[in-house]
Amino acid sequence: MSDVIDLAKELIRRPSVTPLDEGCQTLMGERLAALGFTLEPMVFEDTTNLWARRGSTGPLFCFAGHTDVVPAGPLEQWRTPPFEPTIEAGMLYGRGAADMKGSLAAMVVAVERFVAAHPDHQGSIAFLITSDEEGPFINGTVRVVDTLEARGEKITWCIVGEPSSTALVGDVVKNGRRGSLTGDLLIKGVQGHVAYPHLADNPIHRATPALAELAATEWDRGNDFFPPTSFQIANINGGTGASNVIPGELQVQFNFRFSTESTSEGLKQRVKTLLDRHGLDYELTWTLSGEPFLTGTGALLDATVAAIAEVNGQRPQLLTTGGTSDGRFIAPTGAQVIELGPVNATIHKINECVKASDLDLLTDMYQGVLERLLA
Amino acid sequence: MSDVIDLAKELIRRPSVTPLDEGCQTLMGERLAALGFTLEPMVFEDTTNLWARRGSTGPLFCFAGHTDVVPAGPLEQWRTPPFEPTIEAGMLYGRGAADMKGSLAAMVVAVERFVAAHPDHQGSIAFLITSDEEGPFINGTVRVVDTLEARGEKITWCIVGEPSSTALVGDVVKNGRRGSLTGDLLIKGVQGHVAYPHLADNPIHRATPALAELAATEWDRGNDFFPPTSFQIANINGGTGASNVIPGELQVQFNFRFSTESTSEGLKQRVKTLLDRHGLDYELTWTLSGEPFLTGTGALLDATVAAIAEVNGQRPQLLTTGGTSDGRFIAPTGAQVIELGPVNATIHKINECVKASDLDLLTDMYQGVLERLLA
Repeated sequence: MSDVIDLAKELIRRPSVTPLDEGCQTLMGERLAALGFTLEPMVFEDTTNLWARRGSTGPLFCFAGHTDVVPAGPLEQWRTPPFEPTIEAGMLYGRGAADMKGSLAAMVVAVERFVAAHPDHQGSIAFLITSDEEGPFINGTVRVVDTLEARGEKITWCIVGEPSSTALVGDVVKNGRRGSLTGDLLIKGVQGHVAYPHLADNPIHRATPALAELAATEWDRGNDFFPPTSFQIANINGGTGASNVIPGELQVQFNFRFSTESTSEGLKQRVKTLLDRHGLDYELTWTLSGEPFLTGTGALLDATVAAIAEVNGQRPQLLTTGGTSDGRFIAPTGAQVIELGPVNATIHKINECVKASDLDLLTDMYQGVLERLLA
Repeated sequence: MSDVIDLAKELIRRPSVTPLDEGCQTLMGERLAALGFTLEPMVFEDTTNLWARRGSTGPLFCFAGHTDVVPAGPLEQWRTPPFEPTIEAGMLYGRGAADMKGSLAAMVVAVERFVAAHPDHQGSIAFLITSDEEGPFINGTVRVVDTLEARGEKITWCIVGEPSSTALVGDVVKNGRRGSLTGDLLIKGVQGHVAYPHLADNPIHRATPALAELAATEWDRGNDFFPPTSFQIANINGGTGASNVIPGELQVQFNFRFSTESTSEGLKQRVKTLLDRHGLDYELTWTLSGEPFLTGTGALLDATVAAIAEVNGQRPQLLTTGGTSDGRFIAPTGAQVIELGPVNATIHKINECVKASDLDLLTDMYQGVLERLLA
């Protein structure tokens, strides 16, 4: 049993369902403190965060990740208890095994090995760890980044340990993420009886041509790194439930996943222009989950691709697909940000698991990046 | 106090909230039996109906109406208790005063006066009274009509006592009603995550162009008696509530109020053709509340218009607007059907009332129709 697996199991054993940390960061902090890291716990409301740094000069390389996990779901459906890590047929089972306690263990062990080999490495190494990545992400990474920004502490390169791989560890590196923008639209009409339509104004009838046009719009064509911006209506609700009443309001919630070819402000303006052109009476509120980011080139990406190739002889795919990650909070500071972690096939599911040997390979990849950037 | 008002108050005093009759039909039946009517109570399930006929030859003139009333609502908002009929400033207050116990009293008294003057009148006079007009109308007029049809008993002319008037009694006669047809539409897609739209198929996006076209369609242009057929979406619901999930289904409920220029089968076919042309995967179920009917000309309409003119010197408007009535069940038998009753301004509301003197005028109008048709 490798020391990576041992540490991963120790972390999985702590039932840190978001926003709980359950001592995971203390465990990691003890290991890092022993290497000469300065620990700076940052507790905001219900969220436990850890900023740990070794070195005071630049460039600053940072591992980012989270100790919280999503709820286990129905316990009786798990083949083994979710917080009792178990290896069967080479797979390590447990909630968080893939997302992302395996990555956290690999990061710590990679740094232990790197520091042992290079006690006087260049620049600095840091860990940015939160217990609120799976929750509302209000008091987690975003507030740590705010604290760093306020004192002018800049991350140069950041690897987020999100499970980026699809079939083999390292087969995919996420080198950016689409932006996510949600609109809550209330379209107003005048309620009335269906027998007297001239006395009412049906907001569903008013809205459908505009919604059809929104759904058919080409927002951009994407680029080499991003698919075209996607618009999806997630929720639509109107009506009193009675078949003889014309409703007075229609509620629509839609979401953009957008490429770097669009901006949140540009999309907002285009939606507003379209709705106004349709003559709708409406209220529209926006929630921006994150602007898109892209690490198209640079030393971090080069080092990561080379480190992966050294471990498994293959060149990773660079993708920007999928959901959001805390990388969206770090990239706007000017940092180069990529995501590299284990296979994501079972994340958030019953019987979450990761191939145990993949965690050893991932440790080698992380160490290889450090060797290339800071040795 | 006139005998019409006395009888109306007796009926209002009985709290016959649908489907209860509370002895109203017994009271009416006693008055009619005294005139030589043969009574035929028809109880179906929870509903009390009365078929009463005087004479055995044709033509058969029928008064149709209902003894049930809608619930009173919050008692403390009534100026007088809803089931204690009270006259204040010439207005008779009470639940059912306008809809339609006032009409029932006027019918009975009109017949009493007509039979006294013409004991050997031509043809026959009948009453078709139900206690389930305000409810689900399953065991009321429709079942009495079925019984009559089964034995070949045909109504020639029918006045329904629904409150047709708007400002003065007799200012409006309803000589038809629009049809009502409801569609429940389920549009199917494929659920998925908004971050992976290519793996999902958004039923809202699929549906909106078709719904916009349905809402913009001219179904017919109406005619001299009917406004154009109206299509209204009453309810639309899709989505899981989450902003990051593309729903798998969209539910839409819509309603047609349609003129005699369209038929329910024709509308169904046109909707199906439109949905199919849009390539939708859907399920559609229909509920027909009633086909439209029209009494455009004939002896009944002529007699009614003349009788009203004799009482108040005015010619009534002939309209087909508003909701449905039990006339929709009687008209398909081939009967000429019109609706004539008091002012409908307060029906179904707190402090329902009718001008007391209007019930006397209505009695004269009903009697005048009988004089013209059967004297």
